Amino acid sequence: MPQYDLPESELATYRTTAQAPDDLDAFWADTLAEARALATPPTVEQVKTPLVGVEVHDVSFSGFGGERIRAWYRRPVGAGAEVPTVVRYQGYTGGRGLPHQIGFLPTAGYATLEVDSRGQGSGGGNVGDTPDAHGHGPSYLGGFMTRGVLRKEDYYYRRLYTDAVLAVDAVKQLPGVDAERIAVHGISQGGGLALAVAALRDDLSAVMADVPFLCDFPRGMVLATDGPYLELAGYLSSHRDEVGQVLETLAYVDNAVLATRATAPLLLSVALMDTVCPPSTVHAAFNAYGGPKQLRSYPFNNHEGGQFHQEALQLEWLPDHLR
Amino acid sequence: MPQYDLPESELATYRTTAQAPDDLDAFWADTLAEARALATPPTVEQVKTPLVGVEVHDVSFSGFGGERIRAWYRRPVGAGAEVPTVVRYQGYTGGRGLPHQIGFLPTAGYATLEVDSRGQGSGGGNVGDTPDAHGHGPSYLGGFMTRGVLRKEDYYYRRLYTDAVLAVDAVKQLPGVDAERIAVHGISQGGGLALAVAALRDDLSAVMADVPFLCDFPRGMVLATDGPYLELAGYLSSHRDEVGQVLETLAYVDNAVLATRATAPLLLSVALMDTVCPPSTVHAAFNAYGGPKQLRSYPFNNHEGGQFHQEALQLEWLPDHLR
Amino acid sequence: MPQYDLPESELATYRTTAQAPDDLDAFWADTLAEARALATPPTVEQVKTPLVGVEVHDVSFSGFGGERIRAWYRRPVGAGAEVPTVVRYQGYTGGRGLPHQIGFLPTAGYATLEVDSRGQGSGGGNVGDTPDAHGHGPSYLGGFMTRGVLRKEDYYYRRLYTDAVLAVDAVKQLPGVDAERIAVHGISQGGGLALAVAALRDDLSAVMADVPFLCDFPRGMVLATDGPYLELAGYLSSHRDEVGQVLETLAYVDNAVLATRATAPLLLSVALMDTVCPPSTVHAAFNAYGGPKQLRSYPFNNHEGGQFHQEALQLEWLPDHLR
Amino acid sequence: MPQYDLPESELATYRTTAQAPDDLDAFWADTLAEARALATPPTVEQVKTPLVGVEVHDVSFSGFGGERIRAWYRRPVGAGAEVPTVVRYQGYTGGRGLPHQIGFLPTAGYATLEVDSRGQGSGGGNVGDTPDAHGHGPSYLGGFMTRGVLRKEDYYYRRLYTDAVLAVDAVKQLPGVDAERIAVHGISQGGGLALAVAALRDDLSAVMADVPFLCDFPRGMVLATDGPYLELAGYLSSHRDEVGQVLETLAYVDNAVLATRATAPLLLSVALMDTVCPPSTVHAAFNAYGGPKQLRSYPFNNHEGGQFHQEALQLEWLPDHLR
Amino acid sequence: MPQYDLPESELATYRTTAQAPDDLDAFWADTLAEARALATPPTVEQVKTPLVGVEVHDVSFSGFGGERIRAWYRRPVGAGAEVPTVVRYQGYTGGRGLPHQIGFLPTAGYATLEVDSRGQGSGGGNVGDTPDAHGHGPSYLGGFMTRGVLRKEDYYYRRLYTDAVLAVDAVKQLPGVDAERIAVHGISQGGGLALAVAALRDDLSAVMADVPFLCDFPRGMVLATDGPYLELAGYLSSHRDEVGQVLETLAYVDNAVLATRATAPLLLSVALMDTVCPPSTVHAAFNAYGGPKQLRSYPFNNHEGGQFHQEALQLEWLPDHLR
Amino acid sequence: MPQYDLPESELATYRTTAQAPDDLDAFWADTLAEARALATPPTVEQVKTPLVGVEVHDVSFSGFGGERIRAWYRRPVGAGAEVPTVVRYQGYTGGRGLPHQIGFLPTAGYATLEVDSRGQGSGGGNVGDTPDAHGHGPSYLGGFMTRGVLRKEDYYYRRLYTDAVLAVDAVKQLPGVDAERIAVHGISQGGGLALAVAALRDDLSAVMADVPFLCDFPRGMVLATDGPYLELAGYLSSHRDEVGQVLETLAYVDNAVLATRATAPLLLSVALMDTVCPPSTVHAAFNAYGGPKQLRSYPFNNHEGGQFHQEALQLEWLPDHLR
Repeated sequence: MPQYDLPESELATYRTTAQAPDDLDAFWADTLAEARALATPPTVEQVKTPLVGVEVHDVSFSGFGGERIRAWYRRPVGAGAEVPTVVRYQGYTGGRGLPHQIGFLPTAGYATLEVDSRGQGSGGGNVGDTPDAHGHGPSYLGGFMTRGVLRKEDYYYRRLYTDAVLAVDAVKQLPGVDAERIAVHGISQGGGLALAVAALRDDLSAVMADVPFLCDFPRGMVLATDGPYLELAGYLSSHRDEVGQVLETLAYVDNAVLATRATAPLLLSVALMDTVCPPSTVHAAFNAYGGPKQLRSYPFNNHEGGQFHQEALQLEWLPDHLR
Repeated sequence: MPQYDLPESELATYRTTAQAPDDLDAFWADTLAEARALATPPTVEQVKTPLVGVEVHDVSFSGFGGERIRAWYRRPVGAGAEVPTVVRYQGYTGGRGLPHQIGFLPTAGYATLEVDSRGQGSGGGNVGDTPDAHGHGPSYLGGFMTRGVLRKEDYYYRRLYTDAVLAVDAVKQLPGVDAERIAVHGISQGGGLALAVAALRDDLSAVMADVPFLCDFPRGMVLATDGPYLELAGYLSSHRDEVGQVLETLAYVDNAVLATRATAPLLLSVALMDTVCPPSTVHAAFNAYGGPKQLRSYPFNNHEGGQFHQEALQLEWLPDHLR
Repeated sequence: MPQYDLPESELATYRTTAQAPDDLDAFWADTLAEARALATPPTVEQVKTPLVGVEVHDVSFSGFGGERIRAWYRRPVGAGAEVPTVVRYQGYTGGRGLPHQIGFLPTAGYATLEVDSRGQGSGGGNVGDTPDAHGHGPSYLGGFMTRGVLRKEDYYYRRLYTDAVLAVDAVKQLPGVDAERIAVHGISQGGGLALAVAALRDDLSAVMADVPFLCDFPRGMVLATDGPYLELAGYLSSHRDEVGQVLETLAYVDNAVLATRATAPLLLSVALMDTVCPPSTVHAAFNAYGGPKQLRSYPFNNHEGGQFHQEALQLEWLPDHLR
Repeated sequence: MPQYDLPESELATYRTTAQAPDDLDAFWADTLAEARALATPPTVEQVKTPLVGVEVHDVSFSGFGGERIRAWYRRPVGAGAEVPTVVRYQGYTGGRGLPHQIGFLPTAGYATLEVDSRGQGSGGGNVGDTPDAHGHGPSYLGGFMTRGVLRKEDYYYRRLYTDAVLAVDAVKQLPGVDAERIAVHGISQGGGLALAVAALRDDLSAVMADVPFLCDFPRGMVLATDGPYLELAGYLSSHRDEVGQVLETLAYVDNAVLATRATAPLLLSVALMDTVCPPSTVHAAFNAYGGPKQLRSYPFNNHEGGQFHQEALQLEWLPDHLR
Repeated sequence: MPQYDLPESELATYRTTAQAPDDLDAFWADTLAEARALATPPTVEQVKTPLVGVEVHDVSFSGFGGERIRAWYRRPVGAGAEVPTVVRYQGYTGGRGLPHQIGFLPTAGYATLEVDSRGQGSGGGNVGDTPDAHGHGPSYLGGFMTRGVLRKEDYYYRRLYTDAVLAVDAVKQLPGVDAERIAVHGISQGGGLALAVAALRDDLSAVMADVPFLCDFPRGMVLATDGPYLELAGYLSSHRDEVGQVLETLAYVDNAVLATRATAPLLLSVALMDTVCPPSTVHAAFNAYGGPKQLRSYPFNNHEGGQFHQEALQLEWLPDHLR
Repeated sequence: MPQYDLPESELATYRTTAQAPDDLDAFWADTLAEARALATPPTVEQVKTPLVGVEVHDVSFSGFGGERIRAWYRRPVGAGAEVPTVVRYQGYTGGRGLPHQIGFLPTAGYATLEVDSRGQGSGGGNVGDTPDAHGHGPSYLGGFMTRGVLRKEDYYYRRLYTDAVLAVDAVKQLPGVDAERIAVHGISQGGGLALAVAALRDDLSAVMADVPFLCDFPRGMVLATDGPYLELAGYLSSHRDEVGQVLETLAYVDNAVLATRATAPLLLSVALMDTVCPPSTVHAAFNAYGGPKQLRSYPFNNHEGGQFHQEALQLEWLPDHLR
């Protein structure tokens, strides 16, 4: 795939056409307040693994509707009493995985909370353990993108964003976490969730989002050639009269809209041959982002983005913000 | 795609390796009894359409869990007091469609009940109007094939089969239906549902199933190269330890297993280049079918099957069984 | 496929670069006069079908060169003496189909004439019954798009357009047709034929064209990524010195050129992700259309276009123009 | 593509299931006699080219129905009075090409007659100059494979085979040709034509057929995944009731049937990964071939076959049979 | 992709048709002896990383021809004086990666040596740092599979296997490695290398090979539909006369041949939908393996194989053999 | 593929963004001087072939580093003492082929030197016989495009360009060649080599380059969707920090940069649907070309370009410049 989107000079200033609904902040304030009212403390249970350098704990915490969300809490063995912690969100269809899948952070001295996505967790080998207790009306191939998309109250991503925000509430209550030094991180859908949490919280030390999804829906839906934006296009190819209704709902979860609310430092990556999350949609979120921000662009990558190179950069960048 | 499956001589005697669970009949008897206990009468409301030759009524009836399922009840204008009626089920992802999509039966003098598939109805332009109120654990890309597949009680197709069986309960209560002359029909998933209803009822006059899905899962899952059997394979490619559990659940909804219970006359079609519902899986159901049966094979078709040619055959075959 | 063509703002004013040949009107006047001089009355023979609500008649009428074209004439049983009638043309490779394939119009009270495309009728299950008695020079994969394309007199579409125009001559002679209330309709190639007939007749009450093909060849040939425009590009990729000659011929059958001559009310649909009939080529015809006109745009559809939703709209729109 | 067909051990003995019709020989005897009765002598006109080592002549000769077929007659400059000559037939969609496309034979001392395929000649850059004056009924995408396939008298390949046989009649009349030393050669469709001519003549010195098409239709139609056998499968996927009729016609032009009549020495090549002409279909013709025969198998090639390596082998093999 | 290879019952006993050359053992004994004669001690230099739980050292050691091979030596911080160590080899085109890519073993208490593949290291984001100083004759697309394949002495894999064997020589000399407890591991090409090392050494404690490549070339070359076996098929599709020569060379590096020499305990995985390393080729190596062995089969996976599930199994299996 | 690149009006003036390095001329002067210092005279050995009109000689000459490059020298039998000669270069992955593959020039009275590309010669059936004795660091899939690309001194194309330039040194020493009338020609990579030779020599009579590769790397790398430019993009998708270094090297071999140095008459062809060598990259070289020049554009062709039509044009154009 070539560099098919806007030239880099235009990417630098591109803005989404999506508009913030008048009640955007109220919608999220109410949604989070309701969920928090139903929350109970997280449970933590250490699991036995063959690992000797990292402790793994099975955590459950209250998300949307008070429903329990599963996560792995991992902590370097022998670390100090309270360590900086990164809350991580999953790519589309993925789950928290198996206990020994520790990722690149714990051996660098960080605790992590690897959070499930409700109902997801069967793709790419990363299994999940958290159901989504909510049924739904007709959805495209059953996919998550269009579940409840006709009403903002019913939309799947209202629940998932709430879970993501409350994951930070929960992590701050975990033993051994330094509640003053919390970062969020994710790739693709996980990057979108990290951005959303950045917009809906003011207590984060750092935000890392890689090739984030869930940004600038009006453009993503008509430009992406792979991946979950196509579910929305697919839904609207059948439900031809619901375009307006769908766009209305999506405006509440569009990170190109929400990003203006964010204040924490951001390290974001974009791939200029990305056919899943078109680079303009990622720039739409980055350009709108309210906090200090740094961008790493990968001109020859598709949605795999920076991979290990971005990890290496993050390991350098994190200490400046988290320690 | 070539004729990639067994040669026709072997298709003629092929049997599934799936085994009927000991409690198969009890499972379905209990499931249906529970649902019927919660049922209330169907509602019927005529809708205004530009059609002059066919009346269209918006019907809702009680399916699994007493939940309301939507359907279109169509009746030839000026037909007699009670007409033979065909209950029709939808292909995967499809819904009952729009009121004017009358299909090929009403102008031939039959009433039809076009039944929604809960939660489906966003694919191929055939929209649906019936939600599935049940959440679920991790499922492959969110698709219906793997929702609740780890427990037979939770499996999506337990609900959908129940809806399909109760659609016949409902149609017999509709004004203008000749309750003694009921046929079922469907294509692909709809054909699988028609077969399931044939196995779970003893009051049908005729069964028509075209290139049916939901037959011989153990083979479909390892042979299909397109379509929803791949969701099961995809799920198990992540959930590598759940193969046994999944096969156990599937045995309860496998029409190659259930078909031995059927008694009504069957007209079935199979396509020998079908990559979605491999011909051997269709033969597995046909060969096991307990009632009188007739097969039409399309040697050069993929999953589109016989289309209009099969319709023409059905219009010839139906009067012998339904009138 | 994303929205790959011009943005909607530019579509609204886009015009083809094709120019009307000086003798365009004379060419068609002569062509039609010659064909009409050879015409004999249509034959009509009722066929026995299992349908009770619709009568089906096998019609043949004189097309180009006096050659007989087959069609199905369908009429609602019990309709008045003379009913408004829609002449329908087929998509590329399709034929008039089987007698029972009645489509969405007859049960709404309209008669229809479902017209074969000479030589076509083997694609998508819609069989045809009309040969094209004319041989041809080298053509790309044998396809119809390049048969005789080097001379306007020999071009296949000269014959097909003539057949389409004379189908209306014929339908007006059929018993039970209200000759004052004739509409034409088609999808893709059928939509192009409907537009051509609208340009070459002045007695139509209504024109409906969906995602029409055969519009703005100079652009279609270099932009389409699927479908029959590629036959032209394919032909010219071998016959590299014939570009000018081919464009010259095509100008005589280009509906973006012919459309200025049309006067009847038009309901047209376009799909913004259409890779077969690029939206700009459809707009080129719509923007040039001489009569009253209405456009329905489907932003998330490929060449399937509006399908049942467009049918529903047509059923609402038709009575205003045909009754 | 892997070696997907029968293992080599089974290829060695594989036979087609197609049966010779009772009147096969009479059909061809009559067909050829009729055509010869209409034949007039070939015309030969030297064309000016930039070539200095090879003369090129534009030839036309009488084929089926006395219709003129175009060909290039090429002759090494300075060769003796009469030279051995190879009549060459074209691959599907190709034509005789441009005058300077001399191929590999003339500089080796052979004259060649490069024969057009009527109506073809727009594919792969090899243009043709010979029309097919015959119209036809519905054909799949307009392709040649299904033109007139419902009646053996009307079938396109009856005409093409006749042209191919009469090309040898013609070449023997050309000045400078040694009429006692004529070979035929072709690749793919051209290979099928060479085999057909070998079966329908007894005066050839040598036959070379590479990855021949038009052999063992019953198997080719259900096994090929690319190329023109798919036109037959495509046609029958719409014309579902004509399978028997089509197979009946094809038996008259099936080289796996005709080959038993051949007597001239044959050099044939087959490619074991050929998805256009499955190796079993090629073996079906080879195994049935009546004359002396030699096979070269290319285990790792698809339909490109032996290319230059086969040419080199042919240049070694030809002198033993042609000089 | 379905399960396209042999049924599981036949896989269990399948053997390669490749034969051990008479001088196979001498060839490898000489090759290794020559390389060892040129070897100098490994160099080890600790690199500074942001990791706190794992030390990373940049190692170079002598491989084939005394040429230096790069590797990462990683060691859990705070581990005992000498730890069990796993030597890991890379998948095709991959390299040792970046320092922080520690994989799943070090936090479980194992040291690892992540060995470069000479000349490779630009694929999938896993960069490498080791050149291959040897030029070569014509090779298919330049790929490694066909470099020098015409002479066993020149073949690329002679060098790469030698590097892999000498990596174990080297690791035993590294400070902190328990030279009595060495395992080898790899996936795909890495799995093939692990098997080769198992055949060419007698001092290993454990061998883990996942979906191994480089097994049973005669079958892999004609059955695989993706991946590097296709380079061999591609090469032979041009070099049509070199099939015998190529197979002769490949027999020296075929792990289905070499495996009979192996004695160390093996944990192997196979994926039954693997289109890159067909399951029969993997079984050919497993069935021939000379030491104690255990197989994990993944019926629904393509070449990704068991991924994290296989890792979890390996973490359980390793202590029984390595501690 | 549509015409996806710039419109023709913009192509006419498009310029590359690549800049000539300050030491560009010195780099090539030094490189060629070094190679010439090591050169020894070409060897010529006639090979026996079945051809009677063309003599074929096996030539080897000194290329980069004095290494011997293989070529076929072909000469019309019976031509005068010294004939105009065309040096021809190969497409990517191809070699000089077999002796009898004479191409279109020798029978037109030209001698040709068909030059191998070192290390290439296994693709498309055109085999080669020249090794590249140089190893390399990590390269993408082993392909030639990225071998040594981090240092201009090590880059594969430094060697290949030098070979191409010295092929002309060699051809002028061959018996029977008119050293005053030398042309160069190639397609794709061969076209790029012809352009490079045109820039690095001042003694050519004519240059013919068809759909040339190796022009305007900065654009080719981000726009091509097929072919070897993708190797560069692929390499940089892993080696994410080496973009600058790679572009620096490429500037030394970019024909859109070098072309300003050329002085010989040029006949160039471009294809407007070329996905391998985007038309803008070809125009970048043409627009910069320093000598007299003529362009033939093929609007409906992909990378196959003008094929036989371009050959015919070349046969007309050559005599004006070479005789």
